[in-house]
Amino acid sequence: MFKPARPIKVGVLGATGAVGQRFLQCLDGHPWFEVTALGASGRNVGKKYGAVPGWRLSSDVPKYVRDIELVEGEPGKDWDCEIIFSSLPSDIAGETEERFAAAGYKVFSNARNHRTDPDVPLMIPEVNPDHSSILRYQQQQRGWDKGFIITNPNCTTIHLVLALKPLQDAFGLKKVLVTSMQSLSGAGYPGVSALDIVDNVIPFIDGEESKVESEPLKLLGQLVESNTRFVDAEIAISATCTRVAVREAHTETVSVELGRKTTLHEVAEVLQNFQSEPQRLQLPNAPINPVLLRHEHNRPQPFLDREGAGAMATTVGRLRHCSILDYKFVLVGHNTIRGAAAASILNAELLTVQGYVGN
Amino acid sequence: MFKPARPIKVGVLGATGAVGQRFLQCLDGHPWFEVTALGASGRNVGKKYGAVPGWRLSSDVPKYVRDIELVEGEPGKDWDCEIIFSSLPSDIAGETEERFAAAGYKVFSNARNHRTDPDVPLMIPEVNPDHSSILRYQQQQRGWDKGFIITNPNCTTIHLVLALKPLQDAFGLKKVLVTSMQSLSGAGYPGVSALDIVDNVIPFIDGEESKVESEPLKLLGQLVESNTRFVDAEIAISATCTRVAVREAHTETVSVELGRKTTLHEVAEVLQNFQSEPQRLQLPNAPINPVLLRHEHNRPQPFLDREGAGAMATTVGRLRHCSILDYKFVLVGHNTIRGAAAASILNAELLTVQGYVGN
Amino acid sequence: MFKPARPIKVGVLGATGAVGQRFLQCLDGHPWFEVTALGASGRNVGKKYGAVPGWRLSSDVPKYVRDIELVEGEPGKDWDCEIIFSSLPSDIAGETEERFAAAGYKVFSNARNHRTDPDVPLMIPEVNPDHSSILRYQQQQRGWDKGFIITNPNCTTIHLVLALKPLQDAFGLKKVLVTSMQSLSGAGYPGVSALDIVDNVIPFIDGEESKVESEPLKLLGQLVESNTRFVDAEIAISATCTRVAVREAHTETVSVELGRKTTLHEVAEVLQNFQSEPQRLQLPNAPINPVLLRHEHNRPQPFLDREGAGAMATTVGRLRHCSILDYKFVLVGHNTIRGAAAASILNAELLTVQGYVGN
Amino acid sequence: MFKPARPIKVGVLGATGAVGQRFLQCLDGHPWFEVTALGASGRNVGKKYGAVPGWRLSSDVPKYVRDIELVEGEPGKDWDCEIIFSSLPSDIAGETEERFAAAGYKVFSNARNHRTDPDVPLMIPEVNPDHSSILRYQQQQRGWDKGFIITNPNCTTIHLVLALKPLQDAFGLKKVLVTSMQSLSGAGYPGVSALDIVDNVIPFIDGEESKVESEPLKLLGQLVESNTRFVDAEIAISATCTRVAVREAHTETVSVELGRKTTLHEVAEVLQNFQSEPQRLQLPNAPINPVLLRHEHNRPQPFLDREGAGAMATTVGRLRHCSILDYKFVLVGHNTIRGAAAASILNAELLTVQGYVGN
Repeated sequence: MFKPARPIKVGVLGATGAVGQRFLQCLDGHPWFEVTALGASGRNVGKKYGAVPGWRLSSDVPKYVRDIELVEGEPGKDWDCEIIFSSLPSDIAGETEERFAAAGYKVFSNARNHRTDPDVPLMIPEVNPDHSSILRYQQQQRGWDKGFIITNPNCTTIHLVLALKPLQDAFGLKKVLVTSMQSLSGAGYPGVSALDIVDNVIPFIDGEESKVESEPLKLLGQLVESNTRFVDAEIAISATCTRVAVREAHTETVSVELGRKTTLHEVAEVLQNFQSEPQRLQLPNAPINPVLLRHEHNRPQPFLDREGAGAMATTVGRLRHCSILDYKFVLVGHNTIRGAAAASILNAELLTVQGYVGN
Repeated sequence: MFKPARPIKVGVLGATGAVGQRFLQCLDGHPWFEVTALGASGRNVGKKYGAVPGWRLSSDVPKYVRDIELVEGEPGKDWDCEIIFSSLPSDIAGETEERFAAAGYKVFSNARNHRTDPDVPLMIPEVNPDHSSILRYQQQQRGWDKGFIITNPNCTTIHLVLALKPLQDAFGLKKVLVTSMQSLSGAGYPGVSALDIVDNVIPFIDGEESKVESEPLKLLGQLVESNTRFVDAEIAISATCTRVAVREAHTETVSVELGRKTTLHEVAEVLQNFQSEPQRLQLPNAPINPVLLRHEHNRPQPFLDREGAGAMATTVGRLRHCSILDYKFVLVGHNTIRGAAAASILNAELLTVQGYVGN
Repeated sequence: MFKPARPIKVGVLGATGAVGQRFLQCLDGHPWFEVTALGASGRNVGKKYGAVPGWRLSSDVPKYVRDIELVEGEPGKDWDCEIIFSSLPSDIAGETEERFAAAGYKVFSNARNHRTDPDVPLMIPEVNPDHSSILRYQQQQRGWDKGFIITNPNCTTIHLVLALKPLQDAFGLKKVLVTSMQSLSGAGYPGVSALDIVDNVIPFIDGEESKVESEPLKLLGQLVESNTRFVDAEIAISATCTRVAVREAHTETVSVELGRKTTLHEVAEVLQNFQSEPQRLQLPNAPINPVLLRHEHNRPQPFLDREGAGAMATTVGRLRHCSILDYKFVLVGHNTIRGAAAASILNAELLTVQGYVGN
Repeated sequence: MFKPARPIKVGVLGATGAVGQRFLQCLDGHPWFEVTALGASGRNVGKKYGAVPGWRLSSDVPKYVRDIELVEGEPGKDWDCEIIFSSLPSDIAGETEERFAAAGYKVFSNARNHRTDPDVPLMIPEVNPDHSSILRYQQQQRGWDKGFIITNPNCTTIHLVLALKPLQDAFGLKKVLVTSMQSLSGAGYPGVSALDIVDNVIPFIDGEESKVESEPLKLLGQLVESNTRFVDAEIAISATCTRVAVREAHTETVSVELGRKTTLHEVAEVLQNFQSEPQRLQLPNAPINPVLLRHEHNRPQPFLDREGAGAMATTVGRLRHCSILDYKFVLVGHNTIRGAAAASILNAELLTVQGYVGN
C-alpha cells in the first residue's frame, strides 16, 4: 500500500463554515496529510480555531486544530502547505482559488466555480480517475508552474454518479430521471430557515437541478485529444431537487434506461460488486464498497444509512423494474462527508498516488 | 343551483379515526347532509362522541356531533340514514360496506377494498362523473335493491389524477413518472413512529405504489358496453412513494409524456383553466378551480399550499420541460380533506344531483 | 356595544415582516380599523404589497392589502392615518416610533424599545387597562400634541401574565418560576436556522429572560401620583427561556407562590372565570374567556391549543400542587397573534373606547 | 487498574427493544463482559439476532451478536451467564427479574418495578456506591443464594442526580425544581406517534414526574442500621416532564436551593471537579468527568452535547443565580446510554470491583 515519503502539508480555505468543519473532522488523524493552515474571513483572522464560536458537529472541535491560528485566505507565507482544500462560498471561490493555483498551490475545490472549465477536471476517484491527466494541459494553458485546480462535483451529483458508473460500465446508460430530497446541511449555515422546513418540503433548490443534469455528463465522459479535451457522455438526465427536514444525507429516487437489456439480478450484482481505482489503491478514505446494496423493503433511509462505510458509500435500495424506463431505485448518501469534504480529500489521495502531489 | 328537497341523513363508519374526524369536520354545516349516526369500535360504543378522547385536529370537536352517541358499525335501526361514509380500516371495510349496501344504504367508501371491483365505480367528480352509471348494473349483479357502493381513490392518486385529467383531455397522455413525499396523516393514527421520521425519510409505503400505478387507469378509463364494464386507460405509470416529516398534504414530483406535441404555455393554460362537472353543478364542496397553478419558483409547498381552495384543490407549480418525458411539475394536495373525507363527500354531492341519492 | 362614528385609519410599520404579516391578517375585515398605509424597508418601497415575495402564512395574502403601495417608514403625507401599528425591529423602532408620535400619530408598538420608559404604558387590556391614563403626562413631558406611544409586552410575558393576573387579584402573588419552550416564529424570519433546531433544543434566547422577569412587574403594578408614575408589583420571577421545533405558540411551565392559602379548586375557578375590561366592553378581538382551562392530563399542546378562542386566549392545563411553591401548571399561547399583532390591536381597541383614539 | 480473572458472561433480557439495542451497542468490545445469551419475546425466539428486523441505531448491528440465537426470557440452561441485564417492559420485568435472581443470576435492571423495594439498591456509581451493601440483607430476606437484583434510576433522574450529588456533598441541598424536555427514544419504539410531536410539545409523560420527585431521595439518602434500611434524603423536588421532538437526550432546566450560602464560582468549581468512586476505580465506562460544565451562553444542547464523554456525562450550562431559589442551570444527558443501558453496565462494573460479581 502506498505511503508518501513524508507528511504532506495541507491548508483549508473556508475552515469555519459547514463544509470546512467537515474537512477538519475528516482530516483528523489522516495518515498522509497534515493541516498547517486555516483560512477564515475578516473578523476571525488572528483567532485560534478553538476560540471561534459556531462549531456545529456533534463531536467536539478536533484537538489538533484548536491552537492553529486563522489566517487570511490569500496565498503567502501564512500558507506553508502544498495542498489547498477549498470550501469557499462561490462568490469568492473562483478568483481566490486561481490566485492560489497561480502561486503554486494544488487546489482541491468543493466550490462550483471551476467545475465546468474545459481544462479543469471534475473528479470522483471511483468514476474518472484518469481525468487528472488534463492537469499538465491546464498548467500550460494558464501559465501555472506547480499549481493546479481540481474540483469535485456537487453533493447530489456525487452519490448519483457513484450508482450510475457501474451501470454505465456494464450496460451503457441512456436516460436518468431523478428526484432528490436533500438535507439541510447541503445549504450551509445558517442556510435554511426553520420556518421554511418544519412541517414542510421546499420543492426547489437554486441552481441545483442544472448541476445534477450536467455534471454527470463530464464525470461519465471521456478525456480525449492527448488529454486536452473532455467529451460529455451522451446521457439524458432530468432532475427535480427538493429540500426536506433531514439534517444530513440526501435521498434520491432514480429511474434509469440502460444501453442494453439485462436482468434485475445482473443490475444488483453490478452495483454491489462495484470497485474501482481507489479500492485497488487502498486509498485511506476509500470505502471497500462504494455502493452498498440493501435488500430490506424500507431502506435506504438517511438517518440509518448516512454513516454507511464511514459515510463514504452510496447506499442503494428498493431496486426494481420501472414501467417507464428500465429500472428504478432509491439511494442515500452523506452530503457533507462523501458529498463534499471527503470528496476533495479522496481526490487528493488519488492524485498523491498518481504523483501530482507530494513530490 | 341544485338543492335537495329535504336534508339527507348520513352516517359515518369509523368516526373516531383520523379520516373519520375529517369527515365530521367537513360535514360541519353542510347545506345538504345531516349527520345522524356515528359508528365506532367496541370500547367506545355507547359513549357520546364528545366524550371520546383522541380528537387530533387543531380545531375543536364540532359542536353538532358532541352529543351524538356512538353505535356499532352494523346496519340496523341505529343507522337512520340514507348515506354511509366509510373510513373503516381495510381489514374490516370490505364486508361491512357490503352488509350496509345490501341493507339498502348508499355507501361512499374511502377504503381500498372495493376500488378494483369490476362493478364498483372509483370516482373523482371532476374526472369521471359518468362512471356512476354502472351502479344499476352493480345493484342487479349483487341483488341489491336501493343500496350500492361507490369508492374514491387513494389520496396520492386523487391529486395526481386531478392534474393529469386536463392533460389527458387536451393532449392525450402516454407516460407518467411520479415520486411522492407523503405526509404523516396519510398513515392514520398512531401511524408513523416519531423515531422513524424525525431527521429522516422513509422510502417505502406498503401497497402505495401499486395503487398509484393502477387506480388512475380506471379513473381515466372508459365505461363501456351499456354501462356494465370499465376499460382502463392505456397509460404507463411508474411511482416511487416515500414518507416525510410533514403533518398534512402530499407532495408529488411528476413527469409526463403527452399524446401530442404542444407548448409549455398551452399546458399551463389547460391546467389552470380546468373545470368540470362539479364546477358546472356548483356542488357545495367543489373548488372553483380544481387545479391551482402557481408561478413562483419555490411553490407549491405543503405548509403553504395545503389549504388552497379550502383544501379542495391540487396546487401545481414548477411546470417546465422534462428532458426525458415532455413536461414535469410538482404538485401538492391535502391528503385527508380533498384526498380522503371530502373526496367521498364530493362524490355524494355529485350523486345527489345525478339522482342516485335523496329520492 | 361601542362602535366608532367612522372608520379609523391605521398604518402598519414593518408590514412585510413576520409580525407585520400577522397584523394584516388580523386587521382583515376589522369592524373599526381601515388599513391605509404600509411601511417597508428600502428595496420594497413603491411595490404593491401583493407583489412583494415572502408571505409565509398558510392563508394567502389578504385581498384588501394586495394593491396598497408600500411606502417609507417615516411620518408624512404617505401616512394618512391616525393609528400606527409598529412591528419594526428594535434597532430602528425606538426613534422611528418617536418621530411618528411627535408628528401626531398614535403609536401602538410591539417593539421592546419603549416598554420600560417611565412614561410609556406597557399594556394588556385584561391586565392593566387603566395604565393608559399616563398618556396625558407622556404627551406633556415629551411636548407631543396628539401623538403618543403605547406598548404591548413580549409574547412570552403576555401569556404568562394573562394567567397570573386572576391569581394576583384573587390571592395575591409572591413568586413565579417559569420555563418557556418557545416557537420558531418568535424569532422572526429567517430567524432560527433549521440546523440549530431540528432534533434539538436551544436553551437560550437572547434578552428574553430579563423581559419575562421584569415586564410582568410593570403590568401587574400600579399607576400612582395622579397618573404620572408606575410602581412595580412586588413579585419575584425567575425565568429560563428555551427554543423548540414548534412553528407557532409558546409553551410555559409555571410554578407560583400565592399571597394567601387557597385550594386547587378555587385556583381553577379563578382562572376559568377570569374576565376583565375587554370582555365587559366586548372589544372586537376580545376572547370571551382570556384563560381557557383544560382538564385533560396531556393538554395544553401548542399544535392543538394555539388557535384557542381565535388564538386570543391563553390555554392553561395540568393545574396541580407544587411541592416547592404552591401550585404549578402549563400554559400555551399563540405568540404572533395574541402575543404580538393582536396584542397591539386589542390595545388600540381599548384606547378607542377609552376616547384616546377616533376623535 | 482492576481486571477480572476471566471474562464474565452476561445475558440481556429484552434484547431487541430500544434499550436492548443500546445494551448490545455498549457491550460491544467490553473488556470484562462477554455476551452469551439474548432474550426475546415469542415470535423472535429461535432466530439469530442479526435476522431480526428493527435495528434502529444509526450504526449497524454489532458483528459479535449477529449469530447469537434469541432465547426465551426465563432462567434455565439457555442462560449460561452470571449477569443479567434487563431492559424488559415493566409489565413483565418485576416477576421475570425475581425468577432470574432466585435462580442465582445477578440482575441489573433498567426497569422501574423494583426501584422502590426497601431491600433493593437504586444506584448510580458516582452517587451512592455504598448502597450495594444491602445486597446480603436482600438475599437473606428473599432466600436467594447467589442471585440478587440491583436497579438503576429512570433516565431523567440519572442526569438530574449526577448534577445534584456534588452540590449536596459540598453545600447541602434543600429544594429542586425541574422542568424536563425529554427525547423520543425515552418512550421506546414505536413510542410517540409522529402526529403527536411534529410541530408540537406534549406536556405530560405518564408516571415520569413521580419518579423524578422520588428516586433522587433514595439515591441521595443513607443506608443505615447495619446496611439493612434506606433513609431518604430530605429534599423537596417538584418536576414537570414534557416531551419534545428530539431523537435522543433529555434537556432539564433546574433551580436549586442549597443548604448553605456559597458563590456562583464555588458552585461551578464543585460541578466541574466532581469525581467519585467510578473515576477512582477507573471503571471501563466511567467518564473522567461525570459533569461537564460549559460556559457558552447557548449550551448545553441535546444535538451537540449528547455524545459528551462518550454519552456518559451530564453536560451542565447556563449556571446562574435564581431569584426564587439559589441557583439555576440547564443540563443535557443521553437518555438511552448513560440514562439506561450504560447505567446498568456501570453498576455491574462497580459491583464487579466490589466483589459481588465475578467470583
